[in-house]
Amino acid sequence: MRAARNTATSAATGSGRQQQVLKAAADIFRRKGYDATSLQDIADAVGIQKGSLYHYIDTKEDLLFAIIKDTHDRTLKGNSRWRTIEGDALARLRVFIEDHARVSMKHGRSTSIYFRDARALSRARRDEIMTARDEYESALRSLIEQAQAEGTVNPKLNPRLATFAIFGMINWLYQWYRPSGALSPDTIARSLADQALASLTAEPPPV
Amino acid sequence: MRAARNTATSAATGSGRQQQVLKAAADIFRRKGYDATSLQDIADAVGIQKGSLYHYIDTKEDLLFAIIKDTHDRTLKGNSRWRTIEGDALARLRVFIEDHARVSMKHGRSTSIYFRDARALSRARRDEIMTARDEYESALRSLIEQAQAEGTVNPKLNPRLATFAIFGMINWLYQWYRPSGALSPDTIARSLADQALASLTAEPPPV
Repeated sequence: MRAARNTATSAATGSGRQQQVLKAAADIFRRKGYDATSLQDIADAVGIQKGSLYHYIDTKEDLLFAIIKDTHDRTLKGNSRWRTIEGDALARLRVFIEDHARVSMKHGRSTSIYFRDARALSRARRDEIMTARDEYESALRSLIEQAQAEGTVNPKLNPRLATFAIFGMINWLYQWYRPSGALSPDTIARSLADQALASLTAEPPPV
Repeated sequence: MRAARNTATSAATGSGRQQQVLKAAADIFRRKGYDATSLQDIADAVGIQKGSLYHYIDTKEDLLFAIIKDTHDRTLKGNSRWRTIEGDALARLRVFIEDHARVSMKHGRSTSIYFRDARALSRARRDEIMTARDEYESALRSLIEQAQAEGTVNPKLNPRLATFAIFGMINWLYQWYRPSGALSPDTIARSLADQALASLTAEPPPV
C-alpha cells in the first residue's frame, strides 16, 4: 500500500478511506476472484473515481498483498494465547488448535482469499508470505513433537504429516463455514479440537 | 464440450486432440488460475490456431466445466470400493477415507482447479457440481451415522461437522501434496485414514 509508506500524509481521512478500499477489495476478490476483479470494480464499490485509487495503491496486486498480509498478521495475533498456557504440550496444542479455528472463522473472507489467490502474488511477495506461513506451521509441528516426547501424542505419527492433517481439518472451514449457520464458532472450535486431539493421541481402531 | 455433442464427427483424431486441449487447459489453469488464462494461452500450449479451439469448445468456461466434471466423475469411480466391503460401517469408513485420499493425490492438479475455480462457473453449472458434491459428501456422513448406530463412532460427534473435519483433513492434500515428496501415496493415505478414524472413534484427551 502506498499509504503505508506515506503515513504522515495519509493519516486522518486517508487511513479511514484506505480501510474502506481494502474492505471493498476483499469483498469483491472473495466474490469474483482476484483475477476477474478490476480496479474499476473496486472504485465503483467505494464510490470514488478509479484515478483516486492511486492515492492508496500503485497496482491491484498491492491490494491483494495487503489483504493477505493482514490475514496472516491477524492469525498470529489471534492465535498467541497458547504461548502463555501453563501445562504440558498437549494443553498448549488444545489452545493452539481451538484459537486457530476461531480466528479462521472470524476472518473467513480474507482467509478464503489467502488460500485461493496467493498464487497471483509476485514471486518475491509470495515467498515472503510462504516463509511466514512455514514459520506459523512449524509452531504446531513443534508442539506435536514435544507432546510425542512427553508421551501424550502417538509416537508412530509422522509430525509433518500430522501437522498437515490438523491444519487441513481446521483450514477447511473456509470452504464450508458460514456465520449464519446453526452452530456457534465456540462449539465448532471445541468440536474440531476434540477430533484433532483424538486423532493425535489415540490408536486407530483395528480395521 | 462441443465435441461431446458431435461425437460422430469428432471421433478419431478429434477425441485425441480434445484430450490434449483439456490437458493443456488444466495445466495452465493450475499454474496461472482460470481467470488469468486466455484461450490464446491454451491454443499456444497445444500448438494450434486459436480459431481451431472452437472445433472443441464454445467458451473458456466449457473447458473449466469439463475439467471439474471429469474430476468429480474420476473421484466417484476411484472411490467406489467401499460399497463392496463386507463388514461394519467402520470397515467401510476406512476404505472410503483411504481411497478418497488416493484419488485426490492421483488427480491433484484437477482437484486443485475444482477447489479454487469452481466459483467461476455459471450459476447452473455450479449448481450441478454442488449437487453432485453434496451427494458424494452425504455418503461419508451416512457411514459416520451408521457407525454411530453400531456403537463404533463417538456418539457425541455431530455427523455433519465430523464429515467436514474428515474431508478437510484429506482434501487439504491439494495444498501440500507433491508427487515428488518422500512419502508414497499409500503411506500418506493410510496415515491420514489412521488419524481420521482415531478422531471419530476415540474420546478426546481430558485437556
